[in-house]
Amino acid sequence: MPIRTLVWGENVHEQKNKVVADNYPEGMHGQIAKLLSEDSNISVKTATLQEPEHGCTEAALAETDVLMWWGHAAHGDVEDVVVERIAKRVWEGMGLIVLHSGHFSKIFKRLMGTPCALHWREAGERERVWVVNPGHPIARGLPAHFELEMEEMYGEPFSVPEPLETVFISWFQGGEAFRSGITYRRGAGNIFYFRPGHETYPTYHDATVGQVLRNAVNWAYNPESHPELMDAPNRSIDKALEPIEERGPRLHAHGEEGFR
Amino acid sequence: MPIRTLVWGENVHEQKNKVVADNYPEGMHGQIAKLLSEDSNISVKTATLQEPEHGCTEAALAETDVLMWWGHAAHGDVEDVVVERIAKRVWEGMGLIVLHSGHFSKIFKRLMGTPCALHWREAGERERVWVVNPGHPIARGLPAHFELEMEEMYGEPFSVPEPLETVFISWFQGGEAFRSGITYRRGAGNIFYFRPGHETYPTYHDATVGQVLRNAVNWAYNPESHPELMDAPNRSIDKALEPIEERGPRLHAHGEEGFR
Amino acid sequence: MPIRTLVWGENVHEQKNKVVADNYPEGMHGQIAKLLSEDSNISVKTATLQEPEHGCTEAALAETDVLMWWGHAAHGDVEDVVVERIAKRVWEGMGLIVLHSGHFSKIFKRLMGTPCALHWREAGERERVWVVNPGHPIARGLPAHFELEMEEMYGEPFSVPEPLETVFISWFQGGEAFRSGITYRRGAGNIFYFRPGHETYPTYHDATVGQVLRNAVNWAYNPESHPELMDAPNRSIDKALEPIEERGPRLHAHGEEGFR
Amino acid sequence: MPIRTLVWGENVHEQKNKVVADNYPEGMHGQIAKLLSEDSNISVKTATLQEPEHGCTEAALAETDVLMWWGHAAHGDVEDVVVERIAKRVWEGMGLIVLHSGHFSKIFKRLMGTPCALHWREAGERERVWVVNPGHPIARGLPAHFELEMEEMYGEPFSVPEPLETVFISWFQGGEAFRSGITYRRGAGNIFYFRPGHETYPTYHDATVGQVLRNAVNWAYNPESHPELMDAPNRSIDKALEPIEERGPRLHAHGEEGFR
Repeated sequence: MPIRTLVWGENVHEQKNKVVADNYPEGMHGQIAKLLSEDSNISVKTATLQEPEHGCTEAALAETDVLMWWGHAAHGDVEDVVVERIAKRVWEGMGLIVLHSGHFSKIFKRLMGTPCALHWREAGERERVWVVNPGHPIARGLPAHFELEMEEMYGEPFSVPEPLETVFISWFQGGEAFRSGITYRRGAGNIFYFRPGHETYPTYHDATVGQVLRNAVNWAYNPESHPELMDAPNRSIDKALEPIEERGPRLHAHGEEGFR
Repeated sequence: MPIRTLVWGENVHEQKNKVVADNYPEGMHGQIAKLLSEDSNISVKTATLQEPEHGCTEAALAETDVLMWWGHAAHGDVEDVVVERIAKRVWEGMGLIVLHSGHFSKIFKRLMGTPCALHWREAGERERVWVVNPGHPIARGLPAHFELEMEEMYGEPFSVPEPLETVFISWFQGGEAFRSGITYRRGAGNIFYFRPGHETYPTYHDATVGQVLRNAVNWAYNPESHPELMDAPNRSIDKALEPIEERGPRLHAHGEEGFR
Repeated sequence: MPIRTLVWGENVHEQKNKVVADNYPEGMHGQIAKLLSEDSNISVKTATLQEPEHGCTEAALAETDVLMWWGHAAHGDVEDVVVERIAKRVWEGMGLIVLHSGHFSKIFKRLMGTPCALHWREAGERERVWVVNPGHPIARGLPAHFELEMEEMYGEPFSVPEPLETVFISWFQGGEAFRSGITYRRGAGNIFYFRPGHETYPTYHDATVGQVLRNAVNWAYNPESHPELMDAPNRSIDKALEPIEERGPRLHAHGEEGFR
Repeated sequence: MPIRTLVWGENVHEQKNKVVADNYPEGMHGQIAKLLSEDSNISVKTATLQEPEHGCTEAALAETDVLMWWGHAAHGDVEDVVVERIAKRVWEGMGLIVLHSGHFSKIFKRLMGTPCALHWREAGERERVWVVNPGHPIARGLPAHFELEMEEMYGEPFSVPEPLETVFISWFQGGEAFRSGITYRRGAGNIFYFRPGHETYPTYHDATVGQVLRNAVNWAYNPESHPELMDAPNRSIDKALEPIEERGPRLHAHGEEGFR
């Protein structure tokens, strides 16, 4: 069964800015979905901010194995209840791939527990992405490095937790370097942050970027669901795996639920 | 200058439960503070839930290098604004040490980005803590293992992110094992979670536990402050470190602030 | 194409010790191979210490995607040239799964760069393996914990590098806990160490252990080869990706190879 | 008591190459020692390849808390017995700081378990080092970035294990980026690799580089020694921490030592 992937696009600049609209006539989400659909192992749907519940209803997420997220101008418009719903699905095992300006999305900050800040510059400068971890599944089939002739610069320090693994680092024409492909796991869900993707440049028309995104979906996919990672059950004494006898004073009544 | 440490105690069961009150007549925070004050390199204050802003005012946190947190019954009563204030101080560089049932505190869940759930049992069973990383500063001066004759059991899976380092794992009489000492960094702030510390048992009267807590404070201390980790400045083209010329279409006006 | 897996068995105690011979009449390698062959995605061969070049010839390794290693009594008899050959294949991308007493094998110590020591006891005591990372591919389909009624005890500190991820920790009847499933990557090769497997007990007849081993092979498999990770080429100035001019004094003649 | 630091210099190019000799009239080790001695918490000695046992006798290492290593042309001349001796001291808790071309030293490769290869170019190009982890002790007091006007380029992939933490990444004028400050722990010993330091350029006359090296020594220092990390004792049944009875068949006689 193919990996059910939902591409979420904010879809704001596509509507307001002629450059972006011309660059991505089917929306950024539409173009990203197109890149993913080149992999027969991936089935793709899209959702946007403007849809009810931003297209991330309980039902939609229940049928999503991997969520890919692009947002920029309207992070604040994403409802908190939807953010929590997505976080819960990630903890259960849904993969999450956060693109570019999504570093400041509510869902990414929620899962990282850090500011996720960085320095930036919009100058259409050259970015060269270097593979530092060629054995990682997300680097599969990639050249040793690839260039995006015009990109927005992101500079360090990128205030995220130390990643599980660093897959890419980027060189920028203006003098900066940046950790541009990093992985995490939160609960049972795999998370990949990928830096490139400024809306006024043709990044999501780049074939290598497409390969990265398809690799990331395949890597992030977890066929299992682990809702138990949100539970904190009382394992009662009579069901202990080794025989024990109760000792000492107690706070909780037998069978009581814990505090949260 | 000594490390300015603030011991935060929920101070609920000490007031309501005779066992806890007898166990910790000066409050759990009082007893923990006493353990810390054995180290002349540490200066200690305490704060409790019942104080205005839970004793975690802007002024109090500004004078805190390391915050130690014990809470259980009243996680929900901690105001969100205080939680965010503490998170900000951690990102700047304040150390945070979270004890036992604090795994479900708002501040720990906020900084981990995960449910932080686990299994538990209150049976007064034996816990044996094993040092798995003897070279870590938090393990300094400790024996290869130490026992707490009566403790609450915590069982895996503990739904936290993969730690930076695992320092301790625990064996429980009833058959469970648990990662009981784990480290993280969030922003510039060092975080240590230490498992033992159920309020009805004499854990914070144990000398080895005291050594762990003092070691943790010394390890977590960061003399620097990094508020810049919350900023996302636009590094303008004319101030680029390498000479670049603007190219391509742009979204932002010159000098504009970014979206967040 | 299935994952070409080579199960390496030392095959010493099977020949000398009646208990082991009765336990594993087809050799431990034979029984482990049988467990793997339950997965149609895995094709299995075996090799033993006694074969020429221990069955790990250049040709054999060239056709191996994942190597599984069980050794105990004769670590010292494995020729260094074969160890280096295996290390090279791991760096290129071959997966390596090290079992039980293989913690002291030359190849594991070579790749870890540490003593890989631990405490032990042979008492036929109960081991309970806990899944601490249920979202990890190696934990797929496993219960929350599983028991091996009789196993050798391994105790901490296990002097290995901090793992990339900890998948399992074990509880032992005699009071110890141990990190019993840990992952690494060295070069492009994935490495998994799995603790259980003492030769006098029926561990490799256990269905859950079989599931772990099959999962590990699937996880460790890397379809790519990265021999370039062993090269240190001089990227000459005229081929620099950005135009630069030579400056300052130089040590190397143009086009010279570097020192190693 | 100050941190007893031994600066090891290969001392080959200083003798053979006029540029290097003029750059470092007291030897590279002499100049590095000078940088360290600006910290009153550090006491410094030096040693070179040409001394008996390369100046790394048992006695010398026994009195060394942190070893700093610069080598390039003569890695192969370092005797294996000395390499093993140093590795053992690192496992016990001695800090190790490996500089620049030391990435190919025997001791670094020994402790990493990987090829430690990279791409390189000697063109006197600009390197800009970015702090990606400002909260790390090695980054203390540093600016957000610093420049070395002329340096040798090192390019990715750098075939080392995923670091415990990445502290610096570098930008190069010719188009490359590199992880230039990375940490590890092996046994009880802290290891830091720092990239800059080509012998024909004035890198070790740079004040910021001096600060990095002093920070690294302070960070790497471990006051404790853990020789037990090399032992694999048999914890006998009668001394088990929990009462157990022997069961099942056994391989080892009682009290026997294990295989290694």
